[in-house]
Amino acid sequence: MAQTLVEKIFSKASGKEVKAGEFVMANIDLAMIHDITAPLAIKAFREILGSDAKVWDKSKVIMAFDHQVPADSVHAAENHKMLRKFAEEQGILNYDVKGGIAHQIMVENHVEPGMLIVGADSHTCMYGALGAFATGIGSTDMGFVLAMGKLWFKVPESIRFNVHGKLEKHVYGKDIVLKLIGMVGADGANYKACIYSGEVVEKLGMSDRLTMCNMAIEMGGKAGIVEPDKTTLEYLKAMGRPYEGELLKSDEDAEFQEVELDVTGMEPQVAAPHRVDNVVGISEVEGTRVDQVFIGSCTNGRYEDLKIAAEILKGEKVASNVRLIVIPASHREYRRALKEGLIEIFVDAGALVEAPCCGPCMGGSFGLIASGEVSVSTSNRNFIGRQGSPEGKIYLVNPAVAAATAIYGEITDPRKIK
Amino acid sequence: MAQTLVEKIFSKASGKEVKAGEFVMANIDLAMIHDITAPLAIKAFREILGSDAKVWDKSKVIMAFDHQVPADSVHAAENHKMLRKFAEEQGILNYDVKGGIAHQIMVENHVEPGMLIVGADSHTCMYGALGAFATGIGSTDMGFVLAMGKLWFKVPESIRFNVHGKLEKHVYGKDIVLKLIGMVGADGANYKACIYSGEVVEKLGMSDRLTMCNMAIEMGGKAGIVEPDKTTLEYLKAMGRPYEGELLKSDEDAEFQEVELDVTGMEPQVAAPHRVDNVVGISEVEGTRVDQVFIGSCTNGRYEDLKIAAEILKGEKVASNVRLIVIPASHREYRRALKEGLIEIFVDAGALVEAPCCGPCMGGSFGLIASGEVSVSTSNRNFIGRQGSPEGKIYLVNPAVAAATAIYGEITDPRKIK
Repeated sequence: MAQTLVEKIFSKASGKEVKAGEFVMANIDLAMIHDITAPLAIKAFREILGSDAKVWDKSKVIMAFDHQVPADSVHAAENHKMLRKFAEEQGILNYDVKGGIAHQIMVENHVEPGMLIVGADSHTCMYGALGAFATGIGSTDMGFVLAMGKLWFKVPESIRFNVHGKLEKHVYGKDIVLKLIGMVGADGANYKACIYSGEVVEKLGMSDRLTMCNMAIEMGGKAGIVEPDKTTLEYLKAMGRPYEGELLKSDEDAEFQEVELDVTGMEPQVAAPHRVDNVVGISEVEGTRVDQVFIGSCTNGRYEDLKIAAEILKGEKVASNVRLIVIPASHREYRRALKEGLIEIFVDAGALVEAPCCGPCMGGSFGLIASGEVSVSTSNRNFIGRQGSPEGKIYLVNPAVAAATAIYGEITDPRKIK
Repeated sequence: MAQTLVEKIFSKASGKEVKAGEFVMANIDLAMIHDITAPLAIKAFREILGSDAKVWDKSKVIMAFDHQVPADSVHAAENHKMLRKFAEEQGILNYDVKGGIAHQIMVENHVEPGMLIVGADSHTCMYGALGAFATGIGSTDMGFVLAMGKLWFKVPESIRFNVHGKLEKHVYGKDIVLKLIGMVGADGANYKACIYSGEVVEKLGMSDRLTMCNMAIEMGGKAGIVEPDKTTLEYLKAMGRPYEGELLKSDEDAEFQEVELDVTGMEPQVAAPHRVDNVVGISEVEGTRVDQVFIGSCTNGRYEDLKIAAEILKGEKVASNVRLIVIPASHREYRRALKEGLIEIFVDAGALVEAPCCGPCMGGSFGLIASGEVSVSTSNRNFIGRQGSPEGKIYLVNPAVAAATAIYGEITDPRKIK
């Protein structure tokens, strides 16, 4: 029976050969919880198994604090304290406030091809860039996973996005995925696995692939996936975790819904307010005055993203009307950016560089905007009020557009300046 | 008539020869407002002069945002927006979120010996380290200053703290001022100018002097002052503002209340919970388990402070039970620390390094502690609830103690480790 990668992963995880559409109880390889969702998940877990219960497998649960870091209220501090105690009692790995964004920590340190992973956060779908099936689940479901180590799924169908052509300068994975989201709409891939494929994706580095998988949820996708290849193995090796296990891939004759995209001549893409699928070419919004620029998040806060931005910001100054906030996605990415001089470039330009965390992405902690203000952000959602005032506006862009915009104080096409 | 430096400054500012105890209307040389106090000051200003009014002298008003940076709520963002508009309309210099802590910005860029300066913040007294008279005033008084450029004062009497002896290794200006606060109590210098003097102070660098003047308010002082000398002039030159004006100093036969302190053999000092004058030698609190360490603030967030901490943290790791937050006091201090490798040492050790701002000092923005948690902090106040939960505890220390404590996870005497 010809199978998609997704069907193969669920077959492995459920111990029987399954097809899309079937309902399965599947074993979970890894479960991620963070400071916002973990308290509810733990509450559900204790309701199921009792207050003295142990998680099903302490080696498979990973905790990190990233949304309210360092604690931005007494409530957050109490939450962190409770979670630390839980992690210690359970013997689970807790990155606490020191690791960075949970998603980035997961791909750097834990995710392997072929795994079935759940996370109590919608952008868990990012991990599929390593050939895993990873999806965000609610805190109650996570409570069940912590207790039982398994969860029911309807095996998703797969959409294969075949990306052809040649990328323009300063056009990246972010632009491709924005374009695709604009094409299919916010519900265009509901409950489906988004498999990114084609000659362009094959040539993309892991950072771009992570960006694309991260945003699969923005078209309703249950997962974002790139089939594992040489780049996957090289990335794992670079992370100090050479992978020598089986490399599950879709069979050649497996069934997919197919979507084609030729990126030749495509300009940088922008998700304009207030929907991620409200995608336009940059030429349509160029010149929009901006108050804040945010470079970071699990979507675009990696070394590669920071390098793109730093090359544009080198020797330049942030416009007087703009505050630029730069936040590396993890401790690892921060250290690399620091040692290679990127942080110095940002600071010299007048940016505020903060310690790894989610930052302004979801407007919880700091970097909020006021009414009438415009934020240009490399993150993944531009919903009303997400970065502060509901009367503010958020434009989602790639790191080159963000950097160019910070310099000129208005949405700027980086191809016109560097 | 023999005069103290304070009497000379007020004589100059009021245009007549005055003595301590006299009431004067004095001309203000500089006025500082920041994001928390400026809105109230502007409201008062507009009530006095009307909504279209201009400040008395736009070149003498300096604005900076440091308490809620980057904006940590929509309310803060709206505040910042309003203040930006005010600064633009008035043509006053606004460092916005980019400069760092207002007090540090002031001493680096604006304060000169002999000036009379007011700031809408209690630690304005720090600027006296440059031989100025600087004091914190309420927002309503600041509204009057913005309107009129003058304010009434009772010319303060001066206490001269004569500091003799030889400082131990890892004993700094912070320890001296803590010791003095412990000696005289939180109200021991009420409405008096605290003039730090003696052979030890003469040898102290500007950073230590700033720390000592910063904390004059913690013994009730109206101002903290070091009489200007070679170190003052060298500092101003290093800041790119060589000073060639008159150097006002106290007359030799001027009248002071005198307090003597011999620091020989004095161990690092700690202000234990919950009062700044609850000062003990470190040996009395050594071994206290710690949850958070904060190195930063206007008190101890300068390059020199960071260097002291970095020398201890180099090659070490922050204890697993501790979160270490490091925040340089200003953009200038941050850049210097970055270029000289200090930031790399902190990040490698596992610290969270944040962009210049007040940070956890007053618990407003981020880095709050939970109930039962212990914070060790280089800042200036340990009042109940100041850094988060009212059931938490705060110990005030010098940067060496903070760094050693971060490594061992309990209050640690740095002299015992490096």
